[in-house]
Amino acid sequence: MESLRITLEQSEIPTHWYNVVADMPNPPLPPLGPDGQPVSPEQMAAIFPMTIIEQEMSAERWIPIPEPVRQVYRLWRPSPLIRARRLEELLDTPARIYYKYEGVSPAGSHKPNTAVPQAFYNLQAGIKRITTETGAGQWGCSMAFAGQMFGLDVRVYMVKVSYQQKPFRRSMMQTWGAEVFASPSSMTQTGRDLLARDADNPGSLGIAISEAVEEAASRSDTSYALGSVLNHVALHQTIIGQEAKKQFEKAGDWPEMIFAPCGGGSSFAGIAFPFLADNAAGGRHGRPTRLIAVEPTSCPTLTKGIYAYDFGDASGFTPLMKMYTLGHDFMPPGIHAGGLRYHGDSPLVSQLYHEGLIEAVAVSQLATFEAGVLFARAEGVIPAPESNHAIRATIDEALRCKQSGEVKTLFFNLTGHGHFDMAAYDRYFAGELEDFDYPAEAIGASLAHLPKVG
Amino acid sequence: MESLRITLEQSEIPTHWYNVVADMPNPPLPPLGPDGQPVSPEQMAAIFPMTIIEQEMSAERWIPIPEPVRQVYRLWRPSPLIRARRLEELLDTPARIYYKYEGVSPAGSHKPNTAVPQAFYNLQAGIKRITTETGAGQWGCSMAFAGQMFGLDVRVYMVKVSYQQKPFRRSMMQTWGAEVFASPSSMTQTGRDLLARDADNPGSLGIAISEAVEEAASRSDTSYALGSVLNHVALHQTIIGQEAKKQFEKAGDWPEMIFAPCGGGSSFAGIAFPFLADNAAGGRHGRPTRLIAVEPTSCPTLTKGIYAYDFGDASGFTPLMKMYTLGHDFMPPGIHAGGLRYHGDSPLVSQLYHEGLIEAVAVSQLATFEAGVLFARAEGVIPAPESNHAIRATIDEALRCKQSGEVKTLFFNLTGHGHFDMAAYDRYFAGELEDFDYPAEAIGASLAHLPKVG
Repeated sequence: MESLRITLEQSEIPTHWYNVVADMPNPPLPPLGPDGQPVSPEQMAAIFPMTIIEQEMSAERWIPIPEPVRQVYRLWRPSPLIRARRLEELLDTPARIYYKYEGVSPAGSHKPNTAVPQAFYNLQAGIKRITTETGAGQWGCSMAFAGQMFGLDVRVYMVKVSYQQKPFRRSMMQTWGAEVFASPSSMTQTGRDLLARDADNPGSLGIAISEAVEEAASRSDTSYALGSVLNHVALHQTIIGQEAKKQFEKAGDWPEMIFAPCGGGSSFAGIAFPFLADNAAGGRHGRPTRLIAVEPTSCPTLTKGIYAYDFGDASGFTPLMKMYTLGHDFMPPGIHAGGLRYHGDSPLVSQLYHEGLIEAVAVSQLATFEAGVLFARAEGVIPAPESNHAIRATIDEALRCKQSGEVKTLFFNLTGHGHFDMAAYDRYFAGELEDFDYPAEAIGASLAHLPKVG
Repeated sequence: MESLRITLEQSEIPTHWYNVVADMPNPPLPPLGPDGQPVSPEQMAAIFPMTIIEQEMSAERWIPIPEPVRQVYRLWRPSPLIRARRLEELLDTPARIYYKYEGVSPAGSHKPNTAVPQAFYNLQAGIKRITTETGAGQWGCSMAFAGQMFGLDVRVYMVKVSYQQKPFRRSMMQTWGAEVFASPSSMTQTGRDLLARDADNPGSLGIAISEAVEEAASRSDTSYALGSVLNHVALHQTIIGQEAKKQFEKAGDWPEMIFAPCGGGSSFAGIAFPFLADNAAGGRHGRPTRLIAVEPTSCPTLTKGIYAYDFGDASGFTPLMKMYTLGHDFMPPGIHAGGLRYHGDSPLVSQLYHEGLIEAVAVSQLATFEAGVLFARAEGVIPAPESNHAIRATIDEALRCKQSGEVKTLFFNLTGHGHFDMAAYDRYFAGELEDFDYPAEAIGASLAHLPKVG
């Protein structure tokens, strides 16, 4: 009987993360402070422990994974590489389709890959508490789980409207021992000021970030943690691609195209960057692997944004980062793939895209749900709406292979399950979901507000 | 680095199910029809295909698993055997604790282990449609998934109050292509009669069963499928214990005590019966493995019921089965482990308990949630409320080992994840959950209504 799941022993969990900076043609452009000067490590030390700051700025190719982190990874890693045979048959495509299933983590997505080392480095630095923000709760859950693994207190500022409407991820965070506050809250000056003006403020991700950062900056025993965008987050996620390379070797196959959903960029970076190392050396089997970031047409950062310095958050509190952006005050339409509703993108992903080393494509909401349902009916797993973006692009390519007769090996990142997104599937079946294709006017307006640099 | 997960290759998926009937000291007592005579295969053929009826009545020790069923099992099986190291450390126990994690299936529980072969045998018999009932939706999801795997239409009658209050498992069923009707429905005579009397009838599992059976009995292209209690269901679930035995051999360990939640009995049968085969031969390593069914104190079928012929359903439509029962019209208190709210038990499990070959223990609701939260904080996985019963009993034994200093190997069935049960965890944290210990008066009343036999 053919094996559909290519598994690794736990002893094969990678010992190092891969830092793509070592193989980039040009060094990454630094984040800039309000004075237009590069942000110094000392400035970052107010909210991050030094090991994380070092990783953020490192150009070393291999960064060792601490043994206590690998021990927690053992709870679910290595994640399986799965051959989607039934999907291939359903599509009647000559393409071979594989996916890496990150939904096997306790929190149900790839996010714990970085939450766990972030918790560990904070513990090592003597930190007792971590603050973070969350929208729908995916990242907050991952940080709650990771904090619990190392005995750290975790405080999550959860956007109030999600706190009220999506109680189940809040319950998960509490099950893992985290404190969860509806943001804006009375815990911070930011929150109190906002509540004084409007007691019914529904909150936003920008406000929640401000609260979490304010608390971390004001207490020496407390750090802040971020779940995407930054270099160290992308670094930690490379465990996905590192494992996948071992698994493809074991399967005697190698991907010609890799697809991953791309919002802040960490799931794309995680699966794609390790293959960039091979591409930099000319590619395995004599050709490079094409690496395709898949984003929503409603928030088309790479495909329709511009490459410029912009704030990482809506309110303009963060340093300026050189990235593809739709403008920091661009408000994406309310698609259900909440993890992809980000105006910017990882600076590393952005620079690689700018230099032509990776590709990007945008897909629309209805098409992604159609793909997700088709996938679930073939393979069983019900994917998260974010993952459906990668599935859509993979299916489109598999159908092109059917036309052309090409026997390509396609590979995508199934970043998480959709167990907490069934309301979105419900709306899809009820015909209530909309497509929001390329909101050109809103993007034009927000791009006009880009900060001036230099 | 020590391996916490003991995995098997997909080629090691068992080729046969184990039929405990071959090793029982006495043959199983047959189900009886309304005339007091054993139900004939022909009578069962109105709603089940012949292969399933043969399995229901078989005394063969090994029943081959059809290759197409093993091919679908490959989507998630073999499930991992996991050493709960962090839980052991948290409890500071010398006991070694292992669990089999069945939550890795697409539907999130052990139920697809039987839904898949049931769908296959129906397809083989030329059946086009399957009807079934579901309460909270766990079984309906498994049948929807399994039907989709073999291209069968699946109709699920879902208790109306659950249909309205728990929409997410309904969405899952629809994602896998099933039709879901709120029961009572206008699709059947049973439903129409009830709705004529009360248009707001909230439904019950008994009504939903009646609707599903009525539709299956009235159409030659349609069969009915049941998710627990019956012998063929227990048979299909033995894949759990069969895999576990291979995994313990690989780990160089062997369980001294096995714990599983027990409602209708299939998850207990699935993990325990294969070890009974060894017990019948004197046990491995010179001693038998103790097999402990864990039930709720609020519905203590084995520990407080009587061993008698009773109806399988509340309304008295089914054949009479010899089993431990609290009386078919016993209405269990509204605990959150919905899968354990059953007045009776598998006739095989009941007979083995009656003959002293297995044990049973009852645990109360608050203690099970306490155990589930403790487990989640140690091991990451958030368990289903049903699974928390096995976890409670395992932790209690591990704490006894701590007292006595005994180095026992404990093993439990983590039958499913709790992603669709977070509202119950919410209520636990809010202090809103109740204990319903031994409802003696209600049980006394329902036991007075047992049918007279012979």
